[in-house]
Amino acid sequence: MSASIRLVTTYVYDFAEGNKDLKDLLGGKGANLAEMTNLGLPVPPGFTISTEACKAYLAQGTVPTELAEEVTEHLGRLEQAMGRRLGDPEDPLLVSVRSGAKFSMPGMMETVLNIGLNDASVAGLAARGGNERFAWDSYRRLLQMFGATVLHIDSEHFSDALDAAKQAKGTAADLDLDVEDLRALVGTYKKIIVHHAAREFPQDPREQLDLAVKAVFDSWNGERAVLYRRSERIPEDLGTAVNVQAMVFGNQGVSSGSGVAFTRDPASGESGVYGDYLQNAQGEDVVAGIRNTMSLQELEGVDKTSYDGLLHIMSALEDHYADMCDIEFTIERGKLWMLQTRVGKRTPEAAFRIAHHMVDDGLIDDNEAVLRVTGGQLAQLMFPRFDEAAERRLIARGMNASPGAAVGKVVFDSDTAVEWSDRGEEVILVRKETNPDDLRGMMVSRGVLTSRGGKTSHAAVVARGMGRTCVCGADDLDVDVKTRQFRIRGGGVVHEGDLISIDGSTGEVFDGAVPVADSHVVRYFEGEAFADDDLVDSVAAIMGRADGVRRLQVRANADNPEDAARARRFGAQGIGLCRTEHMFLGDRRELVEHLIVAEDEPAQAKALDALLPLQRQDFVEILEAMDGLPVTIRLIDPPLHEFLPDMTELSVKVAIEDAHGKHDMRQIRLLDAVKRLHEMNPMLGLRGVRLGIVIPGLFEMQARAILEAAARRLRAGGDPHPEIMIPLVASIRELNVVKEHIIEVAKKIQEREGVEIPFKIGTMIELPRAAMTAGQIAEAAEFFSFGTNDLTQMTWGFSRDDVEASFFSEYLDAGIFPVSPFESLDTEGVGALVRKASEDGRATRPELHLGVCGEHGGDPDSIHFFNAVGLDYVSCSPFRVPVARLEAARATLEQSS
Amino acid sequence: MSASIRLVTTYVYDFAEGNKDLKDLLGGKGANLAEMTNLGLPVPPGFTISTEACKAYLAQGTVPTELAEEVTEHLGRLEQAMGRRLGDPEDPLLVSVRSGAKFSMPGMMETVLNIGLNDASVAGLAARGGNERFAWDSYRRLLQMFGATVLHIDSEHFSDALDAAKQAKGTAADLDLDVEDLRALVGTYKKIIVHHAAREFPQDPREQLDLAVKAVFDSWNGERAVLYRRSERIPEDLGTAVNVQAMVFGNQGVSSGSGVAFTRDPASGESGVYGDYLQNAQGEDVVAGIRNTMSLQELEGVDKTSYDGLLHIMSALEDHYADMCDIEFTIERGKLWMLQTRVGKRTPEAAFRIAHHMVDDGLIDDNEAVLRVTGGQLAQLMFPRFDEAAERRLIARGMNASPGAAVGKVVFDSDTAVEWSDRGEEVILVRKETNPDDLRGMMVSRGVLTSRGGKTSHAAVVARGMGRTCVCGADDLDVDVKTRQFRIRGGGVVHEGDLISIDGSTGEVFDGAVPVADSHVVRYFEGEAFADDDLVDSVAAIMGRADGVRRLQVRANADNPEDAARARRFGAQGIGLCRTEHMFLGDRRELVEHLIVAEDEPAQAKALDALLPLQRQDFVEILEAMDGLPVTIRLIDPPLHEFLPDMTELSVKVAIEDAHGKHDMRQIRLLDAVKRLHEMNPMLGLRGVRLGIVIPGLFEMQARAILEAAARRLRAGGDPHPEIMIPLVASIRELNVVKEHIIEVAKKIQEREGVEIPFKIGTMIELPRAAMTAGQIAEAAEFFSFGTNDLTQMTWGFSRDDVEASFFSEYLDAGIFPVSPFESLDTEGVGALVRKASEDGRATRPELHLGVCGEHGGDPDSIHFFNAVGLDYVSCSPFRVPVARLEAARATLEQSS
Repeated sequence: MSASIRLVTTYVYDFAEGNKDLKDLLGGKGANLAEMTNLGLPVPPGFTISTEACKAYLAQGTVPTELAEEVTEHLGRLEQAMGRRLGDPEDPLLVSVRSGAKFSMPGMMETVLNIGLNDASVAGLAARGGNERFAWDSYRRLLQMFGATVLHIDSEHFSDALDAAKQAKGTAADLDLDVEDLRALVGTYKKIIVHHAAREFPQDPREQLDLAVKAVFDSWNGERAVLYRRSERIPEDLGTAVNVQAMVFGNQGVSSGSGVAFTRDPASGESGVYGDYLQNAQGEDVVAGIRNTMSLQELEGVDKTSYDGLLHIMSALEDHYADMCDIEFTIERGKLWMLQTRVGKRTPEAAFRIAHHMVDDGLIDDNEAVLRVTGGQLAQLMFPRFDEAAERRLIARGMNASPGAAVGKVVFDSDTAVEWSDRGEEVILVRKETNPDDLRGMMVSRGVLTSRGGKTSHAAVVARGMGRTCVCGADDLDVDVKTRQFRIRGGGVVHEGDLISIDGSTGEVFDGAVPVADSHVVRYFEGEAFADDDLVDSVAAIMGRADGVRRLQVRANADNPEDAARARRFGAQGIGLCRTEHMFLGDRRELVEHLIVAEDEPAQAKALDALLPLQRQDFVEILEAMDGLPVTIRLIDPPLHEFLPDMTELSVKVAIEDAHGKHDMRQIRLLDAVKRLHEMNPMLGLRGVRLGIVIPGLFEMQARAILEAAARRLRAGGDPHPEIMIPLVASIRELNVVKEHIIEVAKKIQEREGVEIPFKIGTMIELPRAAMTAGQIAEAAEFFSFGTNDLTQMTWGFSRDDVEASFFSEYLDAGIFPVSPFESLDTEGVGALVRKASEDGRATRPELHLGVCGEHGGDPDSIHFFNAVGLDYVSCSPFRVPVARLEAARATLEQSS
Repeated sequence: MSASIRLVTTYVYDFAEGNKDLKDLLGGKGANLAEMTNLGLPVPPGFTISTEACKAYLAQGTVPTELAEEVTEHLGRLEQAMGRRLGDPEDPLLVSVRSGAKFSMPGMMETVLNIGLNDASVAGLAARGGNERFAWDSYRRLLQMFGATVLHIDSEHFSDALDAAKQAKGTAADLDLDVEDLRALVGTYKKIIVHHAAREFPQDPREQLDLAVKAVFDSWNGERAVLYRRSERIPEDLGTAVNVQAMVFGNQGVSSGSGVAFTRDPASGESGVYGDYLQNAQGEDVVAGIRNTMSLQELEGVDKTSYDGLLHIMSALEDHYADMCDIEFTIERGKLWMLQTRVGKRTPEAAFRIAHHMVDDGLIDDNEAVLRVTGGQLAQLMFPRFDEAAERRLIARGMNASPGAAVGKVVFDSDTAVEWSDRGEEVILVRKETNPDDLRGMMVSRGVLTSRGGKTSHAAVVARGMGRTCVCGADDLDVDVKTRQFRIRGGGVVHEGDLISIDGSTGEVFDGAVPVADSHVVRYFEGEAFADDDLVDSVAAIMGRADGVRRLQVRANADNPEDAARARRFGAQGIGLCRTEHMFLGDRRELVEHLIVAEDEPAQAKALDALLPLQRQDFVEILEAMDGLPVTIRLIDPPLHEFLPDMTELSVKVAIEDAHGKHDMRQIRLLDAVKRLHEMNPMLGLRGVRLGIVIPGLFEMQARAILEAAARRLRAGGDPHPEIMIPLVASIRELNVVKEHIIEVAKKIQEREGVEIPFKIGTMIELPRAAMTAGQIAEAAEFFSFGTNDLTQMTWGFSRDDVEASFFSEYLDAGIFPVSPFESLDTEGVGALVRKASEDGRATRPELHLGVCGEHGGDPDSIHFFNAVGLDYVSCSPFRVPVARLEAARATLEQSS
């Protein structure tokens, strides 16, 4: 091959040509085989067909002609190295074909072994090894794997035939089948192929190889692979590589065998090797679990040379990769072969412990330890879980909306939830779907279960915000609030007061109380001391380092003193979003109703006066809990009718009473107000700063409550830092109108109280217009907080409440979203607005403080984006604060690397 | 004054220092006084206090110290020129103080005459002229004007005192009051001032002057002035100038007098001078109409020298300004003085005729004629009007939502409207508010009247779209559909079938039938020939020139063949928006209902099959009407529940029937569907391209209907140019999914029919995300059409349906909007997205065709913006097409000038 051709296109690489960093090109498996080859480890030779070849095939729909030529060339080299020709009837070279994408992916075609065998070469193989049974068994395996994975024949047909053969022989063990049995089985398998695939099994070894390669390529777009990529946010366009490797055989008798091993325990993270070995077996037998394996340690007694060699290699690999490795190996008649290695998958617990231990072992440094764990893993460690050993009865399945394990008595409304909880009961709130009325109930419940709505429904979003376990959209449940029960589609009824258990990490709903195991990690964050808990020590060490390196500050979204205090314990550096409307619920709803139905300004003023001392006290307590740290308080945001009953329900109620001759005047007046305030699109209606401009005194009352609270804290020797945040600003003119009023209020209070209150006034950037005119808005705002929930809604033009049910699943299926833009920030569209607003705002006011307080503030991918854009902080629910701290550090480290 | 000081700040300019182009600095009046002075015309000398002084005063709240000094200096120069000192007891200089902003503005303080008179100088004035009565009458006038305009005393107090004096004298004429009467009246006026202003009338002439100047400044922020600026979109920060000018007196006997004149008739535009003159009177007497004026022509007989001089000056001014001038003059004892000139205001009719005639007269060129008229004026000429001479009885007033004059019988629903209209009756549809259900009724009605909703409510927007007269938000009406009547708050009831008349240009509602005058201009556009109609000739000539110079193409929004044909007659160069959902209404609603309640794909497919031939036939006819021109067809956009009944209404209905033991299963099933499709925020829900992706076959059916229609037209020898437009695209991935299906459909049809259909596929840009990612989207779109209605909604985050009622008026009052962003494009926010998307789209695809099809396509200001951004076309309702043609030309000319 001339150099100039190599420049044009290279689709195939010998193992010796690659290394572990070429995963994009060679896939994970290929890159690691190359690495091991170059480390001088015993790897059966072979070559890798690159992901570029796969991409070219998928784009054109046909295998590129250059590929066939390159395969011919590399195959020739392999044949030369091995001294055998593929499918040679006398002494055949056999190869395995394995997929290997950048990220390992269930659902891809994985392996076809023994390619090169056919009716002629099977005899050559038998002759070479002097083992006819082995040769026919290998041929049988090729037919089975090729039929199932290349020709897409249901593998049951093959296993049924195998079972029948064993049954005819009166045995349960494969090994009892002799040469004749296997030869007959090969015949049967061939017939199965002709019958189900409408073609003969290809006798041409090269055709076998080419078809297997093509099958690997095609499996990239297999249904399960596509779904997996989507759920794991793996890009669609990476393609997979294919590894073609000389076969070695673990099924050549008791001096042969296959095994898998980890250099540390992938479940617990404990040091020490860990693995399984199966004598006289090929790799897939180990995984299939058809016979009992021995532990790796037992291999020492069976084949000490190989065992020592393996341990030596494992130690070398761990040192070389500086990480826990996962290994597949085969021993062929006492000779050890390495078939695969990769950085091993591990549980969250193992991830933290291994990272921490490896720092102690001197394998990696502190920063690398931070990069070795993820926020997602930390979150997993924080949720309570059901005891895995305990018995349970599954009654329904919904969406895993907010993780955790919750047990409690079923209640169907907030009043009952509060009442029962007040008397010490643990409850689970069950609703068709939730709305702001259910907030009190959600707060006192252990968990929330709904029969409607997706992962971004009200229930899901609010529950996640509270760190409350939630399963939503469990549509097998028929919730009937009237009769205080839900029916289960499969049969059965659960009544109010019955115990259930819900798993927010899996979406499962269980009958009765499943025992729950607490999270030590949360208890550690809460301040509990653990002597001798290696996991807690590991988390503590890594979090300490994370806090040392991260640039982004982390604040919490908290609306009450309890949440604020918890957030602070969890490491929050202030409150990024304190929603004042949550303070309007509960007992205060009646006062808010007075405000709404007030017919003139004096009546409005009276209602506001009644709310003032209550709000002020809230703020005093929150500022106290966050003493010395900034507390960003958002003035009231939602449309007022959210505080009133639903229009249709109330209309029906009034109409029915009317039909029965009853007339409740209060209700009729209330219905009038509901109708007056009704909006076609409340999300696009009278809310946020618009309320502040339209309702005289509303924002002033809130500003007064905040600033008087701050004055009290100052006089009590405290160090309050309130930041007043105006929601839903679209234009600097709105902000200016409101700001002027607030500054007036502040002047009066400061004069009267004789204190200087250190406060700021800023705005949410949550409308596209605010982002587009951020350069102007920054003239009036001391800080921006990106409200990425609303910004996502407006930028895409769809509402969180409505769209998930109606078309999100179709959109995910069609690949329009890789992930819901409410879960992870849409960096191309919404992110472009965030970036523009940040740049334009800072151009106007270089010291402008920038933060984000949407759901995205706690999402790892989004945190990395916010770090890159240069925000000063993210704010998220208290329970996400440690996650955000960790991911902020990872973002800093990744960006600087 | 040294040169260096003048560089720092100059607040005052002598008339000789200015010219007519300095309106920003000197105001309109001051600039024109300067111009006349420099032309050598007889202008009483004086000086102008600039708008800069006003702005400084308004910003600081006090008169700048430099201003006082400069006024002293200029006053000194004026005194020197006139040989008199201000308020000199022997021979006083008297001055007038007049406001003069850049744009003339009702509500501003206009004039205080005779400043410089006081208890002492009144004697000097009497001595100088030998006319004691004149002196005391002048003093009396000063007190009255100063009291009313500077001290804000209700002018009725003064006119009551004047009436009392005349009554005591037993006369009705001011002239019958003698010196003693006037002296007594001065005493009375002084007491009125002390009583109502709690201060003495200032005897110091300079204090009089300074207070008057300050009063002019203050009047800039007077309520009426602010409202006027808002309605005329005049910026808030211009400030006003103040003109201080030596007094000349028209009230010095019969050889004196005052008059106003126009160089052409401002009402009709006819050539020939036109004006009024009043002997022995000051200017305000002419305007006040207290005595009968003589026509300008009659002046010739009274004072031929002055008359000839005036005509000479008027002719010179018209030549100099090259426009019709409006003049104020005074003759003082036979000496002609020019007090003011400006380019005269005129009616729309006069504007067109004058512009056209001036081209013939060689005063201006063709292009200037186009710039001399506006789209707004043309629109005025197109609406039918009520005969001004006819009697009428006003019963209510609403918003002038869609201009025109409509007479008809009141109907309360679409069915009645259609039924009555079918039998030849003219009807006016009266509703609380309208929704898509009312569309059929609106189409057959002469006008639409609603008691709720603003200028951008559904009724207003749709009516404007149809060119249908509409008055909306007439909240004095209590519409009761059940009893088929509306009550008027002031009293009275109008029943179904009663005749009413509505004026969409004024918002007035009249009892009975007011006679209507037709518009010749519309009849001309419709193709009627008028021999000898100067207005039609003028419009034709100017429109011809406009079409010759404009760069922007103009298309129409039309959903049916009739509208398409009319649009074409009105000069549309294609259809920019054909809304296919309007084709789903009427008789076809049932088919759409089948589609919606279909429980599986076969049922959906059946419903779609039934719709296909109907849609196809629509498209055949529209393509025929627009043969040879592009027709942009938008696939279905609104959420499906818009085709179903209202949820609350239906819920109540079902509940009441249920209470009475009735169960209508069809209705119950329908309610289920309504509930299933119910969305919290339909504007942000399942609509547009989302429907196309979620409902299999829907967009394909529409694409098939369009392309099969095109194929039929081709086979019939036609020249169809369909452009298929996908609504509500946020991401190129949505567009790609849909485009792929359409291209498949097109391939099949082209193969089957054996024709090559010249079609394009493009997208609406109506979501912020589409604008932000337009560079990507242009890879898949052959054209963009900016849907600025939705883009405005999403960018601002408010819905047209909801916000106008709830806070637009407060926003306009607070100055947050100068004008509703639904009426005129918000160039800062929404416009920035349009600009970005245009640039990014063209960067990807230089030949990308760009248009706009929102309401803004017919708005003059917005058209100028779209021209500047470089769009290829605007699309608007057929009736706005001539307006858009004209404004597009004006935009081209203004940009190139």
